[in-house]
Amino acid sequence: MAKKKVKDNPSSGKAKSTKIEPTQQIGVVGSGSFATAIVKMLTENCKTVHWCVRNEFVKGAIELRGHNPTYLTSVSFNTKKLHLTTDINELVAACDFIVLATPSIYLASALEGLSCDYKNKVFISAIKGIVPEYNDVVAHYLKDKFDIGFRNQAVIAGPCHAEEVAMERLSYLTIATVEEAVSEQLDTFFTSSFIKVNHSTDILGNEYSAILKNIYAIGAGIASGLGYGDNFTAVFVSNAIREMETFLEGVYEAPRDVNESAYLGDLLVTAYSLFSRNRNLGNLIGKGYTVKSAIQSMNMVAEGYYAAASIYETAKQKKMETPIIDAVYAILYQEKNAEKQFKKLTAKLT
Amino acid sequence: MAKKKVKDNPSSGKAKSTKIEPTQQIGVVGSGSFATAIVKMLTENCKTVHWCVRNEFVKGAIELRGHNPTYLTSVSFNTKKLHLTTDINELVAACDFIVLATPSIYLASALEGLSCDYKNKVFISAIKGIVPEYNDVVAHYLKDKFDIGFRNQAVIAGPCHAEEVAMERLSYLTIATVEEAVSEQLDTFFTSSFIKVNHSTDILGNEYSAILKNIYAIGAGIASGLGYGDNFTAVFVSNAIREMETFLEGVYEAPRDVNESAYLGDLLVTAYSLFSRNRNLGNLIGKGYTVKSAIQSMNMVAEGYYAAASIYETAKQKKMETPIIDAVYAILYQEKNAEKQFKKLTAKLT
Repeated sequence: MAKKKVKDNPSSGKAKSTKIEPTQQIGVVGSGSFATAIVKMLTENCKTVHWCVRNEFVKGAIELRGHNPTYLTSVSFNTKKLHLTTDINELVAACDFIVLATPSIYLASALEGLSCDYKNKVFISAIKGIVPEYNDVVAHYLKDKFDIGFRNQAVIAGPCHAEEVAMERLSYLTIATVEEAVSEQLDTFFTSSFIKVNHSTDILGNEYSAILKNIYAIGAGIASGLGYGDNFTAVFVSNAIREMETFLEGVYEAPRDVNESAYLGDLLVTAYSLFSRNRNLGNLIGKGYTVKSAIQSMNMVAEGYYAAASIYETAKQKKMETPIIDAVYAILYQEKNAEKQFKKLTAKLT
Repeated sequence: MAKKKVKDNPSSGKAKSTKIEPTQQIGVVGSGSFATAIVKMLTENCKTVHWCVRNEFVKGAIELRGHNPTYLTSVSFNTKKLHLTTDINELVAACDFIVLATPSIYLASALEGLSCDYKNKVFISAIKGIVPEYNDVVAHYLKDKFDIGFRNQAVIAGPCHAEEVAMERLSYLTIATVEEAVSEQLDTFFTSSFIKVNHSTDILGNEYSAILKNIYAIGAGIASGLGYGDNFTAVFVSNAIREMETFLEGVYEAPRDVNESAYLGDLLVTAYSLFSRNRNLGNLIGKGYTVKSAIQSMNMVAEGYYAAASIYETAKQKKMETPIIDAVYAILYQEKNAEKQFKKLTAKLT
């Protein structure tokens, strides 16, 4: 069983003055909606949050207006708490902890030119996708390309739609680390009146499950678009969590309970919520849009689309039985008819 | 692992003439929405479906108009296929298989006066609740009160909202029996173009989980009514399935995977669907209705309300840790404030 506990919200029922402010420096790389949500979480606890955004326009807009010009625009920041930059080296040099929160397809370019000393720093991935240039998960990419060992890594998992963080609706994060001390420190950065933190040691399991759930959410969306109902969706998701367990055991054996929030909870919020862009992508395809036109009609990246190819390959290499991944892959990449694929899939589900 | 397989839909891709019609007689007791949905399923396969309804008014209305006057009114029956009665002995005498599908609070009165020989007949419970007069599940009630052994019993589990059966949306049932032959026979009655059948041997586990999920759905509804969002609901449901596993292990140890459709799937459809009356009851309470007024405002019985008291007692007797059941019980039966109970509950979830 993964180590697991929840810290009480330090601000609830206590005077604000008893709250311990983190003494170390933390920064966020990325300017999409989840990056913006993480900066919001961190400003609850930190005097300064370092934030490396994509370009000078975004930096200037946030500094001028106190909110991200494109994503989670409803979140107002106290700009005095923000140290904005577009220079990855400036951010990394200033921080002890660096949260990577770009879409996976932009991670390599965001870290391009990283040349400062980052040996003793901790990199926390909030990315839920495959790094396309390396066809691998972020944990492996950081290890292989930057020699950042697992002791200097962490993963933040949901269930946590950025939109609900913006509304300060209670959400639970799971932080996966191999070092207990790192875990404790990260807790002080994130726990707040609307964020509770679980702990896990299953870095790779949390990372893969966050990727898989996007593929399953596309599937749930396709089913919905095709006209399948709630009864079927429930069967679909119950098969998906079992398939996820098979996959995780196949890529990285560890004592884990896939019914914990970081695995099942994250799958549920993505497969059921109308905030889910992956589900929405699937829904458009189920309704008859071509894959290309469905992707083009969305303003945001649906990570599951990019992940499906790599995850499918891994499943085939390891000879896993993954009928849902296979069906979604066939629809997304082999121009197979969604209705026929799902008709076939229904005979394989139980 | 519970025995599990799915029969292909015998009518899909084959000529209708190859379909084997059941030769034995089956009947349904009850005239609510799930009973009506089951009669609809059976008329897909059977020349005659016996149906014992509550009173002469319902019987007359169905015979005259071809649909249930109150529940699932959109479902039209070929009345030539129906053998309607209000006499339980007439129904039982005519049938080899008897599906019990009343709300749990009406079961004892529906079976009152049962005096014909039923020794070799199979009783299939489609009831998802506690028999209040006996404060026990249906399987125990049938055994203790009527001496119907487990070999002559079966349980039908979902996920299966009656409303979607009415629309012929693909749904999966799980039939739990200890006798494989019974299981095979029931398959021929239920499998159709919109119903697939899983098999299980876990009669009590399926029955308890169908009851528990209603209590969790009330909880999910309360959370929604209180303003908690999708992120929290996902955490709540992921805790609920783990609590369900604890409870099932505590009352009846068996090799089971709670992520199968009959357990997790049924929980999901009840906790997430807008068709769920239990979720709706919770939602009203979360929005500030008193428990009494919330119940009165609903046209149908929310099984979870009646089950919560008995399930809570069982959990306490067996010293189980069941924070969700405890919170729902406190709100439903101890007039505790829903907002405060859920605030406390959030600290216990992970």
